[in-house]
Amino acid sequence: MEPSSMYLAEFIGTALLLLLGNGVNMTLSLNKSFGKGGGWMVTCFGWGMSVTMAAYLTGWVSGAHLNPALSIALALTGRMEWALVPGYIIAQILGGFTGACLAYLVYKDLMDNEPDPAVKLGVFSTGPAIDHKPWNAVTEIIGTAILILGILAIGYGKNLVQPGITPFLVGLLICVIGMGTGGATGFAINPARDLGPRIAHAVLPIKGKGGSNWGYAWVPIVGPIIGAVLGVIIFDLFANYCAECLTVL
Amino acid sequence: MEPSSMYLAEFIGTALLLLLGNGVNMTLSLNKSFGKGGGWMVTCFGWGMSVTMAAYLTGWVSGAHLNPALSIALALTGRMEWALVPGYIIAQILGGFTGACLAYLVYKDLMDNEPDPAVKLGVFSTGPAIDHKPWNAVTEIIGTAILILGILAIGYGKNLVQPGITPFLVGLLICVIGMGTGGATGFAINPARDLGPRIAHAVLPIKGKGGSNWGYAWVPIVGPIIGAVLGVIIFDLFANYCAECLTVL
Amino acid sequence: MEPSSMYLAEFIGTALLLLLGNGVNMTLSLNKSFGKGGGWMVTCFGWGMSVTMAAYLTGWVSGAHLNPALSIALALTGRMEWALVPGYIIAQILGGFTGACLAYLVYKDLMDNEPDPAVKLGVFSTGPAIDHKPWNAVTEIIGTAILILGILAIGYGKNLVQPGITPFLVGLLICVIGMGTGGATGFAINPARDLGPRIAHAVLPIKGKGGSNWGYAWVPIVGPIIGAVLGVIIFDLFANYCAECLTVL
Amino acid sequence: MEPSSMYLAEFIGTALLLLLGNGVNMTLSLNKSFGKGGGWMVTCFGWGMSVTMAAYLTGWVSGAHLNPALSIALALTGRMEWALVPGYIIAQILGGFTGACLAYLVYKDLMDNEPDPAVKLGVFSTGPAIDHKPWNAVTEIIGTAILILGILAIGYGKNLVQPGITPFLVGLLICVIGMGTGGATGFAINPARDLGPRIAHAVLPIKGKGGSNWGYAWVPIVGPIIGAVLGVIIFDLFANYCAECLTVL
Repeated sequence: MEPSSMYLAEFIGTALLLLLGNGVNMTLSLNKSFGKGGGWMVTCFGWGMSVTMAAYLTGWVSGAHLNPALSIALALTGRMEWALVPGYIIAQILGGFTGACLAYLVYKDLMDNEPDPAVKLGVFSTGPAIDHKPWNAVTEIIGTAILILGILAIGYGKNLVQPGITPFLVGLLICVIGMGTGGATGFAINPARDLGPRIAHAVLPIKGKGGSNWGYAWVPIVGPIIGAVLGVIIFDLFANYCAECLTVL
Repeated sequence: MEPSSMYLAEFIGTALLLLLGNGVNMTLSLNKSFGKGGGWMVTCFGWGMSVTMAAYLTGWVSGAHLNPALSIALALTGRMEWALVPGYIIAQILGGFTGACLAYLVYKDLMDNEPDPAVKLGVFSTGPAIDHKPWNAVTEIIGTAILILGILAIGYGKNLVQPGITPFLVGLLICVIGMGTGGATGFAINPARDLGPRIAHAVLPIKGKGGSNWGYAWVPIVGPIIGAVLGVIIFDLFANYCAECLTVL
Repeated sequence: MEPSSMYLAEFIGTALLLLLGNGVNMTLSLNKSFGKGGGWMVTCFGWGMSVTMAAYLTGWVSGAHLNPALSIALALTGRMEWALVPGYIIAQILGGFTGACLAYLVYKDLMDNEPDPAVKLGVFSTGPAIDHKPWNAVTEIIGTAILILGILAIGYGKNLVQPGITPFLVGLLICVIGMGTGGATGFAINPARDLGPRIAHAVLPIKGKGGSNWGYAWVPIVGPIIGAVLGVIIFDLFANYCAECLTVL
Repeated sequence: MEPSSMYLAEFIGTALLLLLGNGVNMTLSLNKSFGKGGGWMVTCFGWGMSVTMAAYLTGWVSGAHLNPALSIALALTGRMEWALVPGYIIAQILGGFTGACLAYLVYKDLMDNEPDPAVKLGVFSTGPAIDHKPWNAVTEIIGTAILILGILAIGYGKNLVQPGITPFLVGLLICVIGMGTGGATGFAINPARDLGPRIAHAVLPIKGKGGSNWGYAWVPIVGPIIGAVLGVIIFDLFANYCAECLTVL
């Protein structure tokens, strides 16, 4: 397969993920939205199903990583060629930016009518409930480690999961990570999910917007990468230790 | 197969969709309803599962389009005969009207007891959070493009989705479109879903009802059609570009 | 197979359904419950999944009707022997009564601490948002017709639904019927679901309880039976009209 | 297969379950959490999907009991060797403790900022809505009996459930048990789920914490064990009585 089609898939998939995901945040937060106050269930289920749909669209081409941390972790363990990683990451960040811009178009008038600059930023990129970057990074590390553990578990042959439902199950995984770890940092668990929209917030002509909080931007980049590497190592240690049963099964 | 059975299926399917979907709105909005204030999760999951059930009932006969925009987009790309399209659309709009009337019967007394004419209209057809028709149309265009992309992705052979769960996954797709784009225009994303119930609102002897807001009626017709065409074009460009992997897989 | 094992399955299945379903109502309504105010999503999803679990437990023995209206409709159309129907119905009503009593044991102290007699009744059996029995019956008729249409659609071979997920899909069907029609009468759509718990309410030594509203009791019995018969007739008319495609497929 | 890999799987699985599950409680309850007040739907769905993900990760190694009551009940009925039970239970409790500690790391700053000691305990271990231990035990007994009945029903060959979705269905089972019985005692239904985090609460240096309510600790240990044994006995009585249909099918 041509790498270019895989990069295209990562771009389109991450764009769809952020169009829907940032859209979920806007639906729940913007002042005049019909869905305002819809609650944490919508946040988590909405982001989860956004990943699900993006994975159905692009999984058969690129594997639907949609997340630089996942690509790096898979390359580190020999599951993916390193040569593809830069293209994947660039496509993912561009996709995240594009999706955020499309979400802005969906909610153009409501964004302009929103009085609170913090909300205008919060619908795009994540931020901490309590600003304490080392602990915020810990939260993102643990959340992303769970993400990798879960993805490998769901996609792992021994579980006999049918390929046609893995995107659905990965969506539920995102959902429960949001429910279980999202209250402190908004579960970025994906550098492209945070950086792409943060650039969009900085670039777009949003009326009355404030700063893009670049001081926090490294946390949802570095944390997820560390977490993904940790997650894949834990999974491999665990799976290798149980290798006997793997070969028997 | 006889076209008449396919038209019948589209009629019955769209009627069930609107009976349940308009019913969801009534459950959540009417003054004395047990489900009043049930929230955006119910709105989105309820509409999603309404589509799911309508698709299980009729998918094996007509493909369960239940949406003129989908029929047009499929015909435009050679996936469906143009000769069937007028019959499909008429059946869908009649079904939408009939389903809305049945939902009214379910909630007859509660509709009469509802004091707010805006609620009486809003349970049937969609309207904008901020009335600005060009941007409202953009919202509907993007939402419907996602719908088509998702439907084609889920139903696409390369994803190995079992036919028996595609109606469930399409319901989740509707759900996440509502969560991600519904706050600005109420996610019509389907001309029959909006026009059928709007006619029902105009025709039914609802006590104390106001106007049917016909000035807005073109938006959820034109927007979804443009969006569906855009969506199918994007999908085909994407899938054709990745044709190599398609033929290999 | 011995009818006695089928009756036993209907008894146990309906008991589990009402234990969980009445339990959902108690969780959401009782004064000191951790889940008080949990909302309509929990009501609908909880009742839906209660049916799902009861169907997994008993479906392979008795088909998991758990509902006299369903048994009658299936017998009327030759899908079930009439000789089994009385045993099924008796087992279902006894199961409903038993499940309600078990739910009471789960919430014994919270039931005693609940000050409102209307809540004490409402957690067991259904009632109308606006007391107008003919229209209340219409609501139950339409809701149960949707139930039968959906069950036959999901279980119908042409949809290629895997048997192992039909109980899950039937649970989602219950969920969306609650969302779409439940606001007016609490979606009994099942005589055993209402009558069994109403008898339990009348019999159990609940502190400070009021009357059991026997004047309403016929609505969730007669309505669902009419609706089920209507539903099965509509389904058969529809499926027979499309018979050509059925034989071809 | 080496028992050590099964113990490791039970340890890791229960750790993931409590990391996510205690995390769900913290997300919903802690003072500054983005998910505060997210509601009972998140509680139940979040705990359910926590079990689902833990089961996908470890089910192929150890069967993913993650619950001493389940291990005991399975051993009692010859479904598991007694020799493995002590190792399973120790691994589960250690896992529960470890998961709770990890959840604390995720929410470190928010835990310190939470003013209410009752919340600080409640996010870790369960407690009664009304403190009356015999009835609290009844609640836990019935809830755990449903858990065992459901697990055996879902995993039972005659239901034709595909192995790849049983973890998902077990998650929905946890979800509906929470919805149907959780309002009185917080649905521990698992000694390791309660004891592990209670030890973590006692041991961790949480600022401003109160006591760990050890007087209640026996209820979510004894109740679930009795309930599991009851549940497996009821299931076997039921399944054996229907043995004819089992052999025919």
